[in-house]
Amino acid sequence: MARDHGRAAATRRSSDVPHFDREADVVIAGLGGAGVCAALEAANAGAEVLVLERAGAGGGTTAVSDGMMYIGGGTALQQACGFEDTPEEMFKYLMASCGPDPDEARIRLYCDGSVGHYEWLLDQGIPFKAEFYPDRMLSPGEQGLTYSGNELVHPFREQAKPAPRAHMPKKEGSTGAFLMERLIVAAEAKGVVTEANALCETLVADPDGRVVGVVYVKEGHEFVVRARRSVVLAAGGFVNNEEMVGQYAPHLRKARFNAATDGDDGRGIRMGMGAGGAAVRMHMTSVTLPFYPPKSLMRGIFINASGQRFMPEDSYQGRAGEICLLQENGRVWLLLDDENFERPHFGGGELAAVGETIEEVERELGFVAGTLQSTVAIYNDHAARGEDPLFHKSPEYLVPLTAPPYGVLDLSWDKAIYAAFTLGGLHTNTRAEVLDADGHPVAGLFAAGRTAASFSSPGYSSGSSVGEAMFFGRVAGRNGAATTPH
Amino acid sequence: MARDHGRAAATRRSSDVPHFDREADVVIAGLGGAGVCAALEAANAGAEVLVLERAGAGGGTTAVSDGMMYIGGGTALQQACGFEDTPEEMFKYLMASCGPDPDEARIRLYCDGSVGHYEWLLDQGIPFKAEFYPDRMLSPGEQGLTYSGNELVHPFREQAKPAPRAHMPKKEGSTGAFLMERLIVAAEAKGVVTEANALCETLVADPDGRVVGVVYVKEGHEFVVRARRSVVLAAGGFVNNEEMVGQYAPHLRKARFNAATDGDDGRGIRMGMGAGGAAVRMHMTSVTLPFYPPKSLMRGIFINASGQRFMPEDSYQGRAGEICLLQENGRVWLLLDDENFERPHFGGGELAAVGETIEEVERELGFVAGTLQSTVAIYNDHAARGEDPLFHKSPEYLVPLTAPPYGVLDLSWDKAIYAAFTLGGLHTNTRAEVLDADGHPVAGLFAAGRTAASFSSPGYSSGSSVGEAMFFGRVAGRNGAATTPH
Repeated sequence: MARDHGRAAATRRSSDVPHFDREADVVIAGLGGAGVCAALEAANAGAEVLVLERAGAGGGTTAVSDGMMYIGGGTALQQACGFEDTPEEMFKYLMASCGPDPDEARIRLYCDGSVGHYEWLLDQGIPFKAEFYPDRMLSPGEQGLTYSGNELVHPFREQAKPAPRAHMPKKEGSTGAFLMERLIVAAEAKGVVTEANALCETLVADPDGRVVGVVYVKEGHEFVVRARRSVVLAAGGFVNNEEMVGQYAPHLRKARFNAATDGDDGRGIRMGMGAGGAAVRMHMTSVTLPFYPPKSLMRGIFINASGQRFMPEDSYQGRAGEICLLQENGRVWLLLDDENFERPHFGGGELAAVGETIEEVERELGFVAGTLQSTVAIYNDHAARGEDPLFHKSPEYLVPLTAPPYGVLDLSWDKAIYAAFTLGGLHTNTRAEVLDADGHPVAGLFAAGRTAASFSSPGYSSGSSVGEAMFFGRVAGRNGAATTPH
Repeated sequence: MARDHGRAAATRRSSDVPHFDREADVVIAGLGGAGVCAALEAANAGAEVLVLERAGAGGGTTAVSDGMMYIGGGTALQQACGFEDTPEEMFKYLMASCGPDPDEARIRLYCDGSVGHYEWLLDQGIPFKAEFYPDRMLSPGEQGLTYSGNELVHPFREQAKPAPRAHMPKKEGSTGAFLMERLIVAAEAKGVVTEANALCETLVADPDGRVVGVVYVKEGHEFVVRARRSVVLAAGGFVNNEEMVGQYAPHLRKARFNAATDGDDGRGIRMGMGAGGAAVRMHMTSVTLPFYPPKSLMRGIFINASGQRFMPEDSYQGRAGEICLLQENGRVWLLLDDENFERPHFGGGELAAVGETIEEVERELGFVAGTLQSTVAIYNDHAARGEDPLFHKSPEYLVPLTAPPYGVLDLSWDKAIYAAFTLGGLHTNTRAEVLDADGHPVAGLFAAGRTAASFSSPGYSSGSSVGEAMFFGRVAGRNGAATTPH
């Protein structure tokens, strides 16, 4: 497996290291969202910090993301936009949406610390514009707050009081890059040393299994750095490692777009596994189907190969993607009428059928006679009364589909944009320590970002990965700096 | 995690072992189906073999199983019963049913070696009666051959030529126990030493990471055994470890019956992880819903909470269980008419509704008006013509449901028997070597049975686990015995 990705799990014995080329208190693998926040906090604590980045410059996957961060619990931004939120409601939402078996302890810490984390971002010079964007998607402007999850969608809207929690820095264009640029400048101003084009190869461990350093390669030469206090693995996920995807999350084979950089080849996870860390929740993924905007497309109905609805069509893109991909053979369609027909702004989705009647569309799609007709009849009958007893779509998007011609978009896995990344990774606790298969910490080793297993899972809210990366990156940096030197 | 299961991943350094209490060429953890076959082959190769078993006697989960083994490719038994089969058709079926991303190399080896493996079982004194049992389930008699998968079910019947492959030893009653008894006697006759009440605690590794022994506990005392050539982990799966289930296969929380023994607490997997092995496919599980026998129940239709069908009702119990458990909220029902109504022989399933018309049943179940009615109308319309264009149920079970009263059995996760065990485990190659996160062997370490990741996955055919355990147990024993001593 992963032979083209080199050996990462072959932890080097410290007795096999003749000398260390350099030293630092805390050595961080990866200068993405998790790494830079770990560096900032470790430096704040007085540690000498070295960050090794395999790419030519820092940024990681966070820099190519939209920069959205899922935080809340009553931040100043939420308040300024007129929304009430509490850590408890945020906790209830995440516990409901991150199951089965959500990581309660880490979710609790994340929710309780979320308001403070927002203040910390402001302290790092990240600006947010106090304006709410109502379209439940990425704002094209400078608005700072929006919905990026299923807070307003059944059954979650009944389980926790909804609040928008996607916080977006004030910057048009590539917000992720802007965010990372600001944080890297802040880290370097604090004396953090960063080294680009430095690929972490494997960890160094002493005879007790304590992690004491990192082997890295730069310009064809191997270097070994001693980590006096700790190593933080913040090197991304594994969606760009085909062998790992096959062994851990094979359903991702059907998602043709990776929301990732080349660095997301699982190297950080494998380094941690080699040092004794357990990789958990490795099948958990985020799969986004940007079938809207425009929001009017939520007024259509999704159907599977049996001609049946299978989810509330106002599901957030991140939840819809996962549900659609898991339908039989990944085949799904979106039926619209003339009042609502538009093409998804992000593209994808062939026009599979057009007809003056549902019967005509049903025939054109090759569906079993009567299936789509009864699905639409039942939907229309209830929608006319503002009801959706099957899937409880919000009244806002509930209109009978009665205006011919009817059009059907094929949004199957091979016809539409399914953008994926991995959520599994090293098992960590609330201190961001990497845990072994028995649940005990691997001494000297921390992990954050997509190298660590997310508390999120199907039902993903956008901004959770950048949010988690930064929040637990900070936790890792603080605890990494406080680790007793070996 | 798994704190009540003790430390298994804290591999002991050989330098911390003052002396070894005993020695053997090959030390095997676990005297179940995989362990006994590993022992037999290692002993055949001339190795001195010690098997450590945590329970008071050997047998493991194989002994509490039905003893069914999924083998084929044209065995003497298949031929004697009048069935043609080839390694290639078996391979095609397993590749189609064990996806996504089936473990092709191990499936290939298994199919090519299956006829020979059957001969080997005969050589060990396991008798089989050359009689076919047609009921696609466990035979209550002595018949030796039956269907235990989805070979006859759409879409698999179109992808490979169907053949029955469940081979069952000739013994009424507890066939698994009989099978294990025979094999253990055979192993002991070959000089294999077995030690009961000996709980393997962790592995011993030398400074290079090579596995050189096992620490075990017996009657409160710790012993260390040196394995001159190799260690074989054959200690079962992890379905009885709640923490591991939560971290790796949380959907199993809804399966209330474990097809397992107490020993299936993941200790073997965690021991291997601690020594550098990677655990893969950990979310893969086998979930069986014994909704039949009687087979007449396959003439009913399964419906989910939307009143819709979702699978061919002639699906094998092992596939049906997984599909039903994954329906929304795990809620499923079986609708029958008066001609076909019976109770499942294995119990489970409350009578949820009875009615003179489908409309009455629909109302009684609280389904959305029209949903069940249209489902039944479409089904009946096609069934009357011997067709099932939606799910392609075999004509044998395709009859219109038209004889009132209609009865509905609630087969939801909390109302019926869902029996589960885990299929994920240590990553192994075709030599049964345990592989690390980069895909390289951990020196001196082999694994088989449910401690190793199965090539099977949703779409499980019964007998695959015992079959794989024994087949790859033998592979592990042979290669373990041939490993150069350290």
